Amino acid sequence: MSTAPDKPLILIADPEPRTLDLIFEPEAMARLRALGTLRVHADGQRLSDHDLDAALAQAVIVIGQIDLPTERLSRMGRLRAIFNIEGNFLPNVDYDWCFRYGIHVLNISPVFATSVAETALGMALDLCRGITATHENFRSKSEAWGLESNAESFLLSGATIGIVGLGDLGSTLRKMLTPFHCEVLAFDPWLSERRIREQGCVPASLDAVFQQARVVFLFASSTSENQGFIGRRELQLMRRGSVLLLMSRAGIVDFAALEEAVRSGHVRAGIDVFPVEPLPADSALRSLDGVILSSHRSGGTRDAFLEIGRLVVADSDLILRGLPPQVCRRAERETVAMMRSRPVAKS
Amino acid sequence: MSTAPDKPLILIADPEPRTLDLIFEPEAMARLRALGTLRVHADGQRLSDHDLDAALAQAVIVIGQIDLPTERLSRMGRLRAIFNIEGNFLPNVDYDWCFRYGIHVLNISPVFATSVAETALGMALDLCRGITATHENFRSKSEAWGLESNAESFLLSGATIGIVGLGDLGSTLRKMLTPFHCEVLAFDPWLSERRIREQGCVPASLDAVFQQARVVFLFASSTSENQGFIGRRELQLMRRGSVLLLMSRAGIVDFAALEEAVRSGHVRAGIDVFPVEPLPADSALRSLDGVILSSHRSGGTRDAFLEIGRLVVADSDLILRGLPPQVCRRAERETVAMMRSRPVAKS
Amino acid sequence: MSTAPDKPLILIADPEPRTLDLIFEPEAMARLRALGTLRVHADGQRLSDHDLDAALAQAVIVIGQIDLPTERLSRMGRLRAIFNIEGNFLPNVDYDWCFRYGIHVLNISPVFATSVAETALGMALDLCRGITATHENFRSKSEAWGLESNAESFLLSGATIGIVGLGDLGSTLRKMLTPFHCEVLAFDPWLSERRIREQGCVPASLDAVFQQARVVFLFASSTSENQGFIGRRELQLMRRGSVLLLMSRAGIVDFAALEEAVRSGHVRAGIDVFPVEPLPADSALRSLDGVILSSHRSGGTRDAFLEIGRLVVADSDLILRGLPPQVCRRAERETVAMMRSRPVAKS
Amino acid sequence: MSTAPDKPLILIADPEPRTLDLIFEPEAMARLRALGTLRVHADGQRLSDHDLDAALAQAVIVIGQIDLPTERLSRMGRLRAIFNIEGNFLPNVDYDWCFRYGIHVLNISPVFATSVAETALGMALDLCRGITATHENFRSKSEAWGLESNAESFLLSGATIGIVGLGDLGSTLRKMLTPFHCEVLAFDPWLSERRIREQGCVPASLDAVFQQARVVFLFASSTSENQGFIGRRELQLMRRGSVLLLMSRAGIVDFAALEEAVRSGHVRAGIDVFPVEPLPADSALRSLDGVILSSHRSGGTRDAFLEIGRLVVADSDLILRGLPPQVCRRAERETVAMMRSRPVAKS
Repeated sequence: MSTAPDKPLILIADPEPRTLDLIFEPEAMARLRALGTLRVHADGQRLSDHDLDAALAQAVIVIGQIDLPTERLSRMGRLRAIFNIEGNFLPNVDYDWCFRYGIHVLNISPVFATSVAETALGMALDLCRGITATHENFRSKSEAWGLESNAESFLLSGATIGIVGLGDLGSTLRKMLTPFHCEVLAFDPWLSERRIREQGCVPASLDAVFQQARVVFLFASSTSENQGFIGRRELQLMRRGSVLLLMSRAGIVDFAALEEAVRSGHVRAGIDVFPVEPLPADSALRSLDGVILSSHRSGGTRDAFLEIGRLVVADSDLILRGLPPQVCRRAERETVAMMRSRPVAKS
Repeated sequence: MSTAPDKPLILIADPEPRTLDLIFEPEAMARLRALGTLRVHADGQRLSDHDLDAALAQAVIVIGQIDLPTERLSRMGRLRAIFNIEGNFLPNVDYDWCFRYGIHVLNISPVFATSVAETALGMALDLCRGITATHENFRSKSEAWGLESNAESFLLSGATIGIVGLGDLGSTLRKMLTPFHCEVLAFDPWLSERRIREQGCVPASLDAVFQQARVVFLFASSTSENQGFIGRRELQLMRRGSVLLLMSRAGIVDFAALEEAVRSGHVRAGIDVFPVEPLPADSALRSLDGVILSSHRSGGTRDAFLEIGRLVVADSDLILRGLPPQVCRRAERETVAMMRSRPVAKS
Repeated sequence: MSTAPDKPLILIADPEPRTLDLIFEPEAMARLRALGTLRVHADGQRLSDHDLDAALAQAVIVIGQIDLPTERLSRMGRLRAIFNIEGNFLPNVDYDWCFRYGIHVLNISPVFATSVAETALGMALDLCRGITATHENFRSKSEAWGLESNAESFLLSGATIGIVGLGDLGSTLRKMLTPFHCEVLAFDPWLSERRIREQGCVPASLDAVFQQARVVFLFASSTSENQGFIGRRELQLMRRGSVLLLMSRAGIVDFAALEEAVRSGHVRAGIDVFPVEPLPADSALRSLDGVILSSHRSGGTRDAFLEIGRLVVADSDLILRGLPPQVCRRAERETVAMMRSRPVAKS
Repeated sequence: MSTAPDKPLILIADPEPRTLDLIFEPEAMARLRALGTLRVHADGQRLSDHDLDAALAQAVIVIGQIDLPTERLSRMGRLRAIFNIEGNFLPNVDYDWCFRYGIHVLNISPVFATSVAETALGMALDLCRGITATHENFRSKSEAWGLESNAESFLLSGATIGIVGLGDLGSTLRKMLTPFHCEVLAFDPWLSERRIREQGCVPASLDAVFQQARVVFLFASSTSENQGFIGRRELQLMRRGSVLLLMSRAGIVDFAALEEAVRSGHVRAGIDVFPVEPLPADSALRSLDGVILSSHRSGGTRDAFLEIGRLVVADSDLILRGLPPQVCRRAERETVAMMRSRPVAKS
């Protein structure tokens, strides 16, 4: 391999489940190519073992989910950044090595924030006002008219809102709530109260969120420590007729308790993620009232996928100019172990 | 009738279709009673003809839809304001008389703005992203998962938006769009370009709105001059897959053209008002894809009705202190004739 | 005079103290000419009495401060609007006649709002932080450095603010305060509490404003009822070291009390208007510490004067299209008598 | 020393030029004490060498500017964070060691952002409108009145603005400009264009900033690479009568060129920092028109100093809970060497 000495090698390796077309629009790909020498090791254009080893040895930037254990990293003397473009921090990288040697490990989770927040807001407005429920009644010729049709409606404007998990998703949703003049309670044990307040939220305990908020958005990551932390007890703290949006990971909720709370009419729920996906055909959720079902699709719009390429190019540009990355999410020494979760099966 | 000479008479007369409980929460009613002597002429507590005449002769403020022709107004020497609490300016008042003698004629249409704008935004997000459509697919066990499920989705954030009618409803919706960083084109022939720009919109022709906007909100009032002004031609100007929200009055749209545009997949539509309400059971709209149907319920929430009382009290207080009203909508000499429309049948 | 029958006559009459060049940039003048037939009766181009009478008889719109008593108005059968471009409602118009016959009387006071609010904010930041005072110390080579120099400084961000008079000026200033995250108390007896809250302020009594606010902005109009209503008592309610901005009319303040409060160090003040203008050369204010003096110039920028023409054109266009005016301020039957004040001597 | 085994040691060492009273209000100090065992090594309460060594060996958190060379760090096995509370990253720490071993090095520069941005905005409004200049004319009884007094005024609202350096200071100022509806050009070679756009600015070259902006704010840090990068050429690119605010470091500007540009009337300038401080008594700047002088005091308010303690406590709390810091500024491997500058002499 004869790379010009002054052109840094950018290696795309194991980008799956993403395809390059999905994440790089032509302009982003052109900008990436202008930054260095590009080598691709992906489905349909695999490098030989020899060529892959050579590329790794020269790579300054790696884009993709290729395994990077200690043994491999120790032979990558020029490496400065690894971009995971699947969205999570996977356990196939020796993070300690990277922290020690100043190699940035980055993911592109911020790209989904706008898309998820829009869906969450749309579902919240829908459930506050019974939009989908009324539409279903039109299908069965049973809709009510006039005031009676709004018996269970309430305005989002002025309502008390709860946000569980005030990361990219939660803070993007928070901004979308600005015109509604809501008090917003936020629970996020990873954030200082100061950061929570800076984002226009009131720091609150998990219990306070469920007791006081009329609409609760669940954006928490699934970590090794918070499986099922939203259960029957928390749901029963909600006022009857409240609204719950589950947008991040199914694992944070006790699904049996959620199903029961919806069935009994205690909460109305919008659900984008499920313990088993696709949701089994015989799931009782499919026939409940008071629920809007969504097939793990709140984030994955075409627009969001194209953002991946733009973020990778923006931070690659900075890194190759000797500056720190700014737009992707960095793995942090303290939290990366907890953040790791299993990869998604497909885009 | 023995009214204390210093207590102005406030007469509630023919408030139907509103009931007093619906529009006055206890605090508002207490504030109203504190402003003057209250007399009520309503279903269930009708005054005799004699008492009604006496009350009219003394009334400083009239709240309700009672007929006020010249003959009656000419005997109401203390009258300073008439509040129509049904929402429209009805043709049963001699407006010229009122303008000449400085009697404010007011309606409470601003109370519906937040409620309608929330529904409009919720439906728009739904249609951009296929929320209800996906949910219906869950019901029939046919939902798609992953990227494929978002094939026709687009983000509201950054999309070009059109607003037809930038009154209370449109301007409230405009504020809710702020966090989405959209370019917003507005068509409103009653507004100066300056007023349109002050609200963060770009003045545009009707054609430009339909050609350029990906999501068009219809908030125009129905006037004597604009029946069916949105027809086949305008709908065909839209880019395929665009979104249309009809929130104000059915009369402004050619419904046959709208139905055809939805059926063909040219637009996705949220529809809250219909030429005949309730919508006939055999309407083809009930079974179309690409539509969300709503039973003329976007505005009439319990919260909105309680706002009526608060607005009436706020402006009555000002008027009785010798100041101009500020929060209700005033009839204007130039436009009131065009604005008149038939009353609604019930709350 | 041979006006085309379909071209409405627009008469500019006695525009002084404004000159046409000052208020109409070429584009605005071109737009005005396009609206109708323009006749000008102004210094340097006076019409004969006969021609003036003829023009008045035909005029649909009058722009200027010409006397319009009953006798003259009664011969102006086509008149629909009068624009006072000096900024006040003067006592030389028969307002009752205008109200009765639906003639809009308008002034252009909104044009000064941005300019005045910018100056007010600039002076407030200056006084909170001692900008001008420190600069004066540089002139005399006596400035302090480091922390000591900020002994009396406080941040505007987070401070409690008071606004007296929440009209165009006050509400424009309120918007400029948004990024400072202040609690803003407003006193305005002409506004409903609802309107005050809608603008992001807390309705408060005059005493509460002076007791609680660290920075008080005075924007109240001078009316027949509020001469000197801010006196020694109110100023002494302020916490020592607070900041006062007098931006609207000198008449609302007891100037002797103000001077004493500044001299004693009780308040720091920015003053744009004075009981006698120009301020006499021997005024003690000229040598006090803790004051910023401004020569009634906060509003009258070139930009603001050009806004006059734009407002007049925008509302003339609406009126000639049969619509109500929207951007100028309308005389109101209830308040115009109180609002009248003497004309300014020159632009 | 008998530290309870479970109480982490927090060592305040060489906090000078800060005093503890200056930066920790009682509540912040109480919260700090609640986080661990506090040891102080400061003027007036110096530890013996032996006790200092013992404290360093146990310290989990160090607050202050104590020298931390390799030799010392290698004996600090529990160290997790170093807070520089002076505001800069000083060259007396072995940063490579810290990066390698995951020790956070933090400074508190964000505390000055609000205070500096308020001063910058106040000075900008002043210079746009001639507030201080007019006041000085009052002192000499030479002030102009009326329109003439505003001959050189322009509105900030709607003006094109330039920001050089879009870090904490620049982005805080940017938010304060929101209500003025300005186009804001930003030059910051350390930021990606994407980050610049996310903050509501247009990325621009340095030349474009000086050519197009009517008001330019200089917030750039002084680095080893940018001494005097704003010189005669850049200043001459500005349109005559423009406004320049120098708020960060004197070293980034060619002061002779700046003085000349002010003297000639080409620019009006607000200057908070000088090549030699205090500014010599015979500096010609002291007598120029078109300048506002400020004694390096824009940031150092009492409020800002108390923020230091709050930030240190907030991030200490996170770090001791095993989470990454969030509110202080982190030293970054790529930029810390360039960022180092000499310490200030006193608070």
